[in-house]
Amino acid sequence: MKPDILLTNIGQIATVAGHSENPKTGEELGELSIIENGAIAITEGIIVAVGTNAEVLSQITQMPELPSIEFPNMLATPGFIDSHTHLAFGGSREKDFAMKLEGKTYLEILEAGGGILNTLRSTRKATQGELCSNAFSYAESMLSMGTTTIEAKSGYGLDTENEVKMLRAIEELRPKIPVDLVSTFLGAHAIPPEFEGRTDNYVDLIINEMIPAVAESKLAEFCDVFCEKGVFSVEQSRHILRAAKMSGMKLKVHADEIVQLGGAELAAELGAVSADHLLMASDDGLEAMKKAGTIATLLPTTAFSLNANYADARKMIDMGLSVALATDFNPNCANESLFFTIALACYKMKMKPREALSAVTINAAHAINRGKTHGSIEVGKRADILILDCPNPEYLTWRFGANLVHTVITNGQVVHTKLGP
Amino acid sequence: MKPDILLTNIGQIATVAGHSENPKTGEELGELSIIENGAIAITEGIIVAVGTNAEVLSQITQMPELPSIEFPNMLATPGFIDSHTHLAFGGSREKDFAMKLEGKTYLEILEAGGGILNTLRSTRKATQGELCSNAFSYAESMLSMGTTTIEAKSGYGLDTENEVKMLRAIEELRPKIPVDLVSTFLGAHAIPPEFEGRTDNYVDLIINEMIPAVAESKLAEFCDVFCEKGVFSVEQSRHILRAAKMSGMKLKVHADEIVQLGGAELAAELGAVSADHLLMASDDGLEAMKKAGTIATLLPTTAFSLNANYADARKMIDMGLSVALATDFNPNCANESLFFTIALACYKMKMKPREALSAVTINAAHAINRGKTHGSIEVGKRADILILDCPNPEYLTWRFGANLVHTVITNGQVVHTKLGP
Repeated sequence: MKPDILLTNIGQIATVAGHSENPKTGEELGELSIIENGAIAITEGIIVAVGTNAEVLSQITQMPELPSIEFPNMLATPGFIDSHTHLAFGGSREKDFAMKLEGKTYLEILEAGGGILNTLRSTRKATQGELCSNAFSYAESMLSMGTTTIEAKSGYGLDTENEVKMLRAIEELRPKIPVDLVSTFLGAHAIPPEFEGRTDNYVDLIINEMIPAVAESKLAEFCDVFCEKGVFSVEQSRHILRAAKMSGMKLKVHADEIVQLGGAELAAELGAVSADHLLMASDDGLEAMKKAGTIATLLPTTAFSLNANYADARKMIDMGLSVALATDFNPNCANESLFFTIALACYKMKMKPREALSAVTINAAHAINRGKTHGSIEVGKRADILILDCPNPEYLTWRFGANLVHTVITNGQVVHTKLGP
Repeated sequence: MKPDILLTNIGQIATVAGHSENPKTGEELGELSIIENGAIAITEGIIVAVGTNAEVLSQITQMPELPSIEFPNMLATPGFIDSHTHLAFGGSREKDFAMKLEGKTYLEILEAGGGILNTLRSTRKATQGELCSNAFSYAESMLSMGTTTIEAKSGYGLDTENEVKMLRAIEELRPKIPVDLVSTFLGAHAIPPEFEGRTDNYVDLIINEMIPAVAESKLAEFCDVFCEKGVFSVEQSRHILRAAKMSGMKLKVHADEIVQLGGAELAAELGAVSADHLLMASDDGLEAMKKAGTIATLLPTTAFSLNANYADARKMIDMGLSVALATDFNPNCANESLFFTIALACYKMKMKPREALSAVTINAAHAINRGKTHGSIEVGKRADILILDCPNPEYLTWRFGANLVHTVITNGQVVHTKLGP
């Protein structure tokens, strides 16, 4: 074997392996998935060997042209995967912040004409290029903090033209930044003002016009719905998601965030890949998700910013659900740091550091249907690898205010590094 | 006037001016302290002009050798000041983290032989150079997030030799990194094991041996005491602080963090420059601090990491106390980000974004007796300036997970920038 790139003398490799075929909770992340003094070989963007230095070097018949890169005392992990973001939108929302500081809830801000409708106006006004440029700046910041795969939703256009424009902005972004982007159509994010009081008519528009337009141009791999009291009912959500499934999209659900509505049950019923938020999910709903293999994606930054309670991660992990963590980066909670998400998961949701690590890598990969290709450092997987300037997975939770990213490799290319020339 | 450096076309300058002589709360930070489309001129490390572009350019008789640097759509603020850190220590403490996740309190971890005594052992074992090297890596991370002045305490040596070694490590760091360092002697941080049950004897050692040694070598500008139940009583703290004052040190107090002991009252009585933590401070104590001009330094990251309640910032600001915010970076809470501190202040303590900004600049400057030279963008002050990639002070709270630092200027020198060559 002659690799293109060889990383050697890595203090620890947290491979997060062993979760690919049958996603398990972070509990399973044991001794076996940590390799001390390890090495990784990469060919054409794919991991071709991983193990101890000796194991990897023994497989190499010809050294690469480039000198191997050494990372003593550092930690290699899979690239972080942010499996739930609203990456592209117009405008910014620092002015809503005052309302939040006065204790207003998300729904109250929404009712006061602020919140999502504010972003709706800015997004409709923006050109595709402007949306792409905004998304680029957010994605660039994410990449600098180790996020190598980003799920990005539409949902601030809320009519066919503008939903398509948002998804095209994500397409325009793809070649501009070395992150892997996964597009989700979220036309059912809110009721646009022109359909106020006529939600069923808007649902018809989504089903009859938006989904066909998105599917025809292959602009989204997933369809998501904000299934919530005052937004889309379980029945309306079911209609939309079924139509999307028929059109070839995979499914996600914003489920049981504010009110226990039955979103978790719906996600399980339809075989959704993930159900997200889940602060109020019923035990029956969670059990159904487990049976269906639906990933529980938790978004603690949103709870932090809303001063809400956190989802019960410990209960979900202990019952055997696969838990992913994501930022929920959006104009109402514009925090793109998965380090911060990990810190909240540990400090506020009592997740263990290794559970949190698998939740932003392999479990997050499963939450975007990328479990076979992304999310762990294993032979045959895409070479998305972080080198962190820290000795072990616990340390990154201890130093929770620092950006410990030393080197980022995406698709086998070094795209960011603190190494000298 | 011929400046060395000229910054022009700055979208907004938040000067945080008007707080120098008589520190006031952030409430006063009004329209006047924001300059739209402004400029700043710097000569020999000092701000020599600040105002609108037109105002500043009209004062310039000869342009600098270097081209002026333009920052359209960006925000200039004073360099952030971290007025309470434990920057230098041996070892790391990610392993204590498991105990915290099980819900153990700081005092329980201390009683179990973990916590501070763990760091005590590592610090005593470390050489001065090793401590300096650790502190360098933390300070470098702080600087990358906009912190240009750092207060750094001893307090993990707990005998004369090792306390002096810690303070000398800070001295060794000074020429190595372009941040302004302020040293604080904190021999009274904990009772070392060899003095268990004999706190009064340890107090005698501090007064008779440590303070004279530190004062003689001019190794600390401040003396601080952890005045807390089970650590140093009010009476013991008073003895130590009086001795330090007699030796020419200014005073700080770790006051009323866990138990209402009277630390705030003591700080006021002795004319301490700041009293820090204050979660349990009595109203009388806070009133006394206000009369004495003692700054209330709040450390929300510590409360976050301990799952404690937060100090009542609103009450303190509303009663007219000057509130500073600091990270409390230490081995038990290793978060060096003042952006995170600001986010907690706003999201959890209901401080307004502009109050939080003055709390990490001018009020923090007063908390380390640097109010006349640091903490605001005013003529005659040291040119410690941040250029943030954001349009206004509220935005930086909205984007609370990003490192928005674009350019850092310390002492008139550009030490970090995203500008091309």
